[in-house]
Amino acid sequence: MNSGAIVIGDGKISKQRVGMNRGVSILDFILRLVAVLGTLGSAIAMGTTNETLPFVTRFTRFRAEFKDLPTLTFFVVANSIVSAYLVLSLPLSIFHILSSNAQRSRIPLIFFDTVMLALLTAGASAAAAIVYLAHKGNSKTNWFAICQQFNSFCQRTSGSLIGSFGAVVVFILLILLSAMALSRR
Amino acid sequence: MNSGAIVIGDGKISKQRVGMNRGVSILDFILRLVAVLGTLGSAIAMGTTNETLPFVTRFTRFRAEFKDLPTLTFFVVANSIVSAYLVLSLPLSIFHILSSNAQRSRIPLIFFDTVMLALLTAGASAAAAIVYLAHKGNSKTNWFAICQQFNSFCQRTSGSLIGSFGAVVVFILLILLSAMALSRR
Repeated sequence: MNSGAIVIGDGKISKQRVGMNRGVSILDFILRLVAVLGTLGSAIAMGTTNETLPFVTRFTRFRAEFKDLPTLTFFVVANSIVSAYLVLSLPLSIFHILSSNAQRSRIPLIFFDTVMLALLTAGASAAAAIVYLAHKGNSKTNWFAICQQFNSFCQRTSGSLIGSFGAVVVFILLILLSAMALSRR
Repeated sequence: MNSGAIVIGDGKISKQRVGMNRGVSILDFILRLVAVLGTLGSAIAMGTTNETLPFVTRFTRFRAEFKDLPTLTFFVVANSIVSAYLVLSLPLSIFHILSSNAQRSRIPLIFFDTVMLALLTAGASAAAAIVYLAHKGNSKTNWFAICQQFNSFCQRTSGSLIGSFGAVVVFILLILLSAMALSRR
């Protein structure tokens, strides 16, 4: 009888834990959807940016595109890879909602989330460094602020960084949620 | 008697787990030391770089320093912050070696490790984008490859990226180790 009572007590606690883990898993799923929108939006916004100027001088070109700067190409590629990974991770996220006690499948998820966080941060940060340079220029190295000519190109590229940095924050939250789900079982 | 046997069995399993968690914690401590060396080395190497040229033309300056490029300043600051954080996290890492069953203290550690990974990757990647530009230049935007003049400055800045990117890999391993320690108790 005594041992029976202990089992019932354990059942209550584990039910509560399953409920909390399910909540965490649902939040995980929603955050992944948000991050997909952020990274995909960034990739598309950057990938479709171009501006053609109506005039030519010594220091301006006819047309500005993301392909002109290798760093912006890396930004588009990194965002595309991360958004593809996020879409592929959605089934695993759904599996965690359905079976809240799953533990082993969370370890590879934390690992790949961390790798993707690093890739996304690298892309977003490198692009931000170049966009900053395009805005401000650098007098010491004689790098000109091309944004003085390519105004709308610069506004678009700057804007497309927002989605990417938003997704970086979401990834940090995702890793925190996974760690919390791992510690509570 | 039966319930007593179960307790002994649990004791054996938990002893094995404690041993494995201790191994993971020691590896965690060593990796943190490696990352301190990487980030501190990067910060010092970049922070002390400067080159003075013996001649002046229209496109070269007297002196190149990391302060001339705001992105390289960010690199030095990010590496300094991360190495300070790593030194501060060492006592917690030692605590995890001594009390291997500690769980709650691992959650903030994973969270701050993740934030520092993002900061370090941002610094290293932004600096890499600028150093790449300094090496290759960009004909479309009329940004010149300053490395043609500042050869030793460029070699030093490129080299100082290595420690930083090495530390990024170490951080990914640290987060993986913490997740493994959380799942096994």
